[in-house]
Order: sequence, then C-alpha cells, then structure tokens
Amino acid sequence: MSKGLTVNSYFEDQVKSIALENQEGVSTVGAMMVGDYEFATSKKEYMTVVSGELTVKLPRENDWKTFSKGESFIVEANQAFSVQVKQTTAYLCRYE
Amino acid sequence: MSKGLTVNSYFEDQVKSIALENQEGVSTVGAMMVGDYEFATSKKEYMTVVSGELTVKLPRENDWKTFSKGESFIVEANQAFSVQVKQTTAYLCRYE
Repeated sequence: MSKGLTVNSYFEDQVKSIALENQEGVSTVGAMMVGDYEFATSKKEYMTVVSGELTVKLPRENDWKTFSKGESFIVEANQAFSVQVKQTTAYLCRYE
Repeated sequence: MSKGLTVNSYFEDQVKSIALENQEGVSTVGAMMVGDYEFATSKKEYMTVVSGELTVKLPRENDWKTFSKGESFIVEANQAFSVQVKQTTAYLCRYE
C-alpha cells in the first residue's frame, strides 16, 4: 500500500500542505494564508498556483512578480525565495 | 484575521483536504490515495484535478470518465458520485 497522506504545517499554521507521490513525482498540495513568508529549497521546486495568487521575489531577482491561478514558477535547489500572499492561496509544489 | 486552514480527513485518512476561502470563493485543496470512493454533495462542486487523475461516474451517467491534470467536472448539489483513484491524486474542489 502506498505511503499515507502526511500533513505538514509551517509558520504557526499559516501554511499547511499534504504530501503525495504519484506518476508525476513527489509533490505537496497546500494552502497559504495572507502573510509574508521566506522559503528555502533543498530540491528544485516547481510551484503552481491552484487558487488565488502568489507575489514572489525569486533568487537573484529584485522585482516581485505575481503568479495567478494556473501559473507556475521554478526555484532551483538550495535557494531562498520570498512570498507575499494577498489572499489565501492554494498551490501545488512538485520536487525534483 | 481570516479563518485558519482547517484540515479534514475522510475514508480512514485515505482522503485529506485543507479548507480555504479567497476571492474565487470557498474551496478545499486535497489529495486522494488509490481507492474507490463514494461522495455526496450538499453544494454544487467544481472539481479540478491538480496532479494525477480521477476516474468518475457522474450522477445519472452509466460510463466512467477519466479526468487528468488540469481537467474539471461539475456535480450539482445533493447528488452522489463515484470516484476511482488509480494513482494518488491532488484536487481542488470549489463549492457554490
């Protein structure tokens, strides 16, 4: 039987995610409440906005960019990036 | 401050979801493990496959239809529908 669905919580429950593994690989699906967050990657991450929007400052970038529903961005492994969440947002993060 | 991120679990932890509310409305984002499930709606549901695939028998339909990543289906309120999950699948369900 495949591994269970692990729920993780970050930033004092402001960000929650469910870990899953399928034919597309290892991912988490989750939600972020309104707030400002700093994330650090250990693997390459493919982030897709599922509902809502994320305003992101990617590594080595000066400008913030907003990603809406259906849009994705990539962060290489061992990088930090900043996220501003202006409405509660659901996302998919696939790891590589 | 907006409501917290409530995590719900169904079918003995085989299905888990995170409830959220944003400009698009009230939704849950979640994951389903491999298995067969019967769902009943109390509101109209807009289901979108975020990762993986769902094989669904919609109300008043005889045939099963498979929805892949990015595809959606709608179930009216107060209806039952059946789902076969052949790989762990992430979804977004928006309620109306």
